Amino acid sequence: MEGDSEAAGPSAQSGVNPDIHSERTSPSFPVERVTNLLDGGAELTATRRHVESIINSDSTFSQDDRYFLTRVEQYEGSVRRAVRLREKMKELGWADNGTEAMVLGADVAFGIHNGVFIPTIKELGIEAQIAKWVPLAQDLQIIGTYAQTELGHGTYLRGLETTVTFDPSNQEFVINMPRLSSIKWWPGDLGRSATHALVLAQLYTQGKCQGMHAFIVQIRSLVDHSSLPGVTVGDIGPKMNFDQVDNGFLILQNVHIPRENMLCRYSEVSPDGTYVKRGSDRINYFSMVLTRTRLLSAEIIPALAKACVIAIRYSVVRRQSKLKPGEMETKILDYQMQQQKLFPQLATVFAFHFMASSFEAFCNQVKVQIKSKGDFSSLPELHALSAGLKALLSDVCSAGVETCRRACGGHGYSLLSGLPSLYTRVAGSCTYEGENTVMQLQTARFLMNCLSKVYSGQPLPQSVSYLSDLFSTRCCGTEKTDFIKPPVYTKAYKHRAQRLIKNAGFQLQSLLQSGVEQYVAWDSTSILLAQAAIAHCQYTIVNNFVETMSRLQHEPEIQQVLQVLCDLYALSGILANAEEFLHDGYMTGHQLDLVTASQRDLLTCVRKDAVSLVDAFDYSDQQLHSAIGSYDGHAYQRLFEWAQKAPMNAKVPFC
Amino acid sequence: MEGDSEAAGPSAQSGVNPDIHSERTSPSFPVERVTNLLDGGAELTATRRHVESIINSDSTFSQDDRYFLTRVEQYEGSVRRAVRLREKMKELGWADNGTEAMVLGADVAFGIHNGVFIPTIKELGIEAQIAKWVPLAQDLQIIGTYAQTELGHGTYLRGLETTVTFDPSNQEFVINMPRLSSIKWWPGDLGRSATHALVLAQLYTQGKCQGMHAFIVQIRSLVDHSSLPGVTVGDIGPKMNFDQVDNGFLILQNVHIPRENMLCRYSEVSPDGTYVKRGSDRINYFSMVLTRTRLLSAEIIPALAKACVIAIRYSVVRRQSKLKPGEMETKILDYQMQQQKLFPQLATVFAFHFMASSFEAFCNQVKVQIKSKGDFSSLPELHALSAGLKALLSDVCSAGVETCRRACGGHGYSLLSGLPSLYTRVAGSCTYEGENTVMQLQTARFLMNCLSKVYSGQPLPQSVSYLSDLFSTRCCGTEKTDFIKPPVYTKAYKHRAQRLIKNAGFQLQSLLQSGVEQYVAWDSTSILLAQAAIAHCQYTIVNNFVETMSRLQHEPEIQQVLQVLCDLYALSGILANAEEFLHDGYMTGHQLDLVTASQRDLLTCVRKDAVSLVDAFDYSDQQLHSAIGSYDGHAYQRLFEWAQKAPMNAKVPFC
Repeated sequence: MEGDSEAAGPSAQSGVNPDIHSERTSPSFPVERVTNLLDGGAELTATRRHVESIINSDSTFSQDDRYFLTRVEQYEGSVRRAVRLREKMKELGWADNGTEAMVLGADVAFGIHNGVFIPTIKELGIEAQIAKWVPLAQDLQIIGTYAQTELGHGTYLRGLETTVTFDPSNQEFVINMPRLSSIKWWPGDLGRSATHALVLAQLYTQGKCQGMHAFIVQIRSLVDHSSLPGVTVGDIGPKMNFDQVDNGFLILQNVHIPRENMLCRYSEVSPDGTYVKRGSDRINYFSMVLTRTRLLSAEIIPALAKACVIAIRYSVVRRQSKLKPGEMETKILDYQMQQQKLFPQLATVFAFHFMASSFEAFCNQVKVQIKSKGDFSSLPELHALSAGLKALLSDVCSAGVETCRRACGGHGYSLLSGLPSLYTRVAGSCTYEGENTVMQLQTARFLMNCLSKVYSGQPLPQSVSYLSDLFSTRCCGTEKTDFIKPPVYTKAYKHRAQRLIKNAGFQLQSLLQSGVEQYVAWDSTSILLAQAAIAHCQYTIVNNFVETMSRLQHEPEIQQVLQVLCDLYALSGILANAEEFLHDGYMTGHQLDLVTASQRDLLTCVRKDAVSLVDAFDYSDQQLHSAIGSYDGHAYQRLFEWAQKAPMNAKVPFC
Repeated sequence: MEGDSEAAGPSAQSGVNPDIHSERTSPSFPVERVTNLLDGGAELTATRRHVESIINSDSTFSQDDRYFLTRVEQYEGSVRRAVRLREKMKELGWADNGTEAMVLGADVAFGIHNGVFIPTIKELGIEAQIAKWVPLAQDLQIIGTYAQTELGHGTYLRGLETTVTFDPSNQEFVINMPRLSSIKWWPGDLGRSATHALVLAQLYTQGKCQGMHAFIVQIRSLVDHSSLPGVTVGDIGPKMNFDQVDNGFLILQNVHIPRENMLCRYSEVSPDGTYVKRGSDRINYFSMVLTRTRLLSAEIIPALAKACVIAIRYSVVRRQSKLKPGEMETKILDYQMQQQKLFPQLATVFAFHFMASSFEAFCNQVKVQIKSKGDFSSLPELHALSAGLKALLSDVCSAGVETCRRACGGHGYSLLSGLPSLYTRVAGSCTYEGENTVMQLQTARFLMNCLSKVYSGQPLPQSVSYLSDLFSTRCCGTEKTDFIKPPVYTKAYKHRAQRLIKNAGFQLQSLLQSGVEQYVAWDSTSILLAQAAIAHCQYTIVNNFVETMSRLQHEPEIQQVLQVLCDLYALSGILANAEEFLHDGYMTGHQLDLVTASQRDLLTCVRKDAVSLVDAFDYSDQQLHSAIGSYDGHAYQRLFEWAQKAPMNAKVPFC
């Protein structure tokens, strides 16, 4: 490209693009304080930055070429990074679940090995099993996967078909897959990496099925990595994203494993084949809840946060058309439509971040109850909330990332923008760890139980106690400033949730009373039930945002700007679901017009701080992987430079 | 995989999966007649099938490996197919724009060459230019691109920066790109294929800028395909999809072209540098409209149609959980939530198909007006409607495809399902051929002009004549069957469109009267304006569906099932936008409950014919490229077989 620099000018433009620089000259709040708040304190900000600087300066972790690799290359890169990370962790004494491991996220291999295989052995195994397997796994002497989902069954676990039959004659379990649909399908780290699998299967002993249990099965040789007799294993092929993960399939035919390979903290098969159950494995549900929570803060919310950074930065360096004749072309962030697309997403990031923090605190509290007192009473509430939040946050963040992507026009369609990959990755979270519709209906089932408690006068768990609150019938706002008062909008959200939950309960009861069978009544009410679950979660989130803000009184400088985002989140949500606020006359069309006017005012308020707010997320350019969203705002230059690296350009003519 | 067939059973299952077979035993309508209706007659169905059979039996067109190729391989495959297609067309006498070329769609290279480069020369060139360039291009002696979009400018054409300056001393034009943002970016067929570019640039002559014009520029050698002096050209890198297209960049520095290379049907630079304009180039707008129309029926609607085929077929072979205890697991299509996700999409395909047909008829009518009488009076209406429909249909189809994809759970995330690629491809249509927000605002501008005509008593174009109709204030439905009466719901859509258009007009006027500048008033009203444009298009589509149904009186057997879809489309749209029907009290909450009940009944009606309805789209398995959506319903078997082909599985252990 020599010589181009004079005319078309793709020469290095030093410093920061003036169009983004001008956005940063006078933020209305101390940016670093918001960063600290999001990190959970200045100290944690420092730790995170320290870890990032180490990772960013190690070329093994560099992903400069990520958009140009084949699937096989991506997989191999992620394995290299995983091995290097393990070395670093040993070398620097980083913790397994600390901030340290979080920084690289899903771009390292062995996510299932580290995140599910090892923890499940610790959870469901006895001491001897833990002592045998965990050190091997932590040392990467063996690589494990978690083989649960089958071709024909995912969410409905009771339907899993793989069988494990105990043979007392040789003290072994025999594993089989009776038909095509029983093939294990999807487990991560399985396609090429795994040497061992935690196989979830129906246990048969003494001629009786005892339901699903977990078994450790070696599937590949530790000498030459070839698959063992009776084992057929491979990769399931390309996906919408996660190219770096070797999701695999596994067929086991007459595979024998010793009796000791059944994880047996909570149940065991004795040598004569007697099935023995001990204690409760309810703790399993708690693990599932923890996995989902981690998903929120490690995958789902960061996707939207990064998309906001990219789209908002790009929107102040992209100029298009002249809003005011005779002037320069307008920054696209100055258009009302662009603000309407992006600022509610920005507010959503904060709303979800604070919600995830509070939920994590709730988890820790329940953990103490369980560990110290064996008290599982909060588990249903925790489980229901985790399901509903997972469904809502993954839906909203996926839609939000795509909104950000489209708001970047043509360049948002280029992989180099970073936005398509953010979307295709986060979209997966709507399905994995529990399909969203199923999740919503699980939350709804809990809500229906709580509703019957209301009617029978029993006490309610804290997060649903509002169900027995007074049911107000009219919103009291009369002018547009009324609607940025938190009590006004939280009350509206509460009313809507109360109404939709009661509404679903009413229809369910009516159907049952008319003689319809339980399962038909439930299915016929499912659309209403899902609506009710969403309304409950949205009320919880708005309420939590408001409460978080009230605890920020000692930080008025950042409280002010975040309160604007809180209001914006709440009002944007009312407008997006306006029908549900109007339906029974709680709000009038006129009040909704006031909400609209108020929401537009908030967009204008956010505009001046928009770039500083996304700067506060403190993502380094290496984490964003975006040619158009980098800190210095040189979008066009990077697009041009990165494009040169495409393999399509390496080909010689006519070959 | 030998030996697996006995146990896990991945052996060939012959025939059709009984779970899908049972769906086809007694359709309530003659499936073939619906296919004929969609094709535009039985004869066209026959032609299409004939062409498909030729293409499907030619191994050059086979795309069995499409999900396993690198970008470079995909590009090269599409070039091979393009060359082969050209041969076939010559051999069999297929027309350039006939059904024939449509079948392969975007999977052949040279889409811009054939679809834009050649037609633009025909449109903007004089006879001598057409005679010189078109035969070369049709023979693939040269490959052309259309170089309009720049790094810094897309939709706002007046902002394009590339300059072409006439130099009378040597009768040449000199082309330059003054800065980085002027680099041509995105043109298809440019990255590796093109030898020539139609460069759109600002024309300067005698020191004056005459605006944008088109110039033919040779960019690569016809001998060794190397780029010519002053030309830097390459591929812009990977995108969210369209891997097979070499979207490229182009830098021109002091490139000289002869005076004859300016396309000069409508304007010319004479030898002394005098700029001469002749006639009107308004016909250009008409070409743009035609391109958009073709996009609807060739890319956007088929994406949703294919997604419906895949998701609905999969939903009758996937069983999950037991709705009724003791019975077999339930087909997921029997769940209300699944029907609510999929059936409105199915109805949408029909609604959009009929709309696109009517719009095409309108285009042809306007074409006659223009060609025979030079009458351009319908052009603004046509242009506004094409913009609004393009925006609405691409938005809705993208969202619909993604809904279908997620409704297929985990397997919908596998590329092998075909669904991720349908999404990532159709999502692009929200941006190309006019960014959707800009499109909506163009439609809104036309609506505002029409509104002022209403107030001043001037006649209105046909498609907006309803603006002067009586403004009814209350919906008259009192029981749920009232809401499946077309007059009831079309009236509701009309009312909503009238109200939102007047509402936007009122706010615009109020702002102007309060002294706000025109451009500020327009921007401050843009959210309302976009809403108005959408409401207008939705009314037009519902109205058109109803009218199409009334013309089907001679085909009562298919009219009945399609009327159900018409009702479903209309009612689902009311529920999705319920706020806008409730806002001013046109409908009450109670009426909306009746609409809800009625819509649920329609879901049940559609259930029994769902598979036959998607069969009627008549896509062959070769066109669907889906392991889970094939005609025979053997989803698991195909997933398993296709996965074996993944390059990840070809690697030997430890290398």
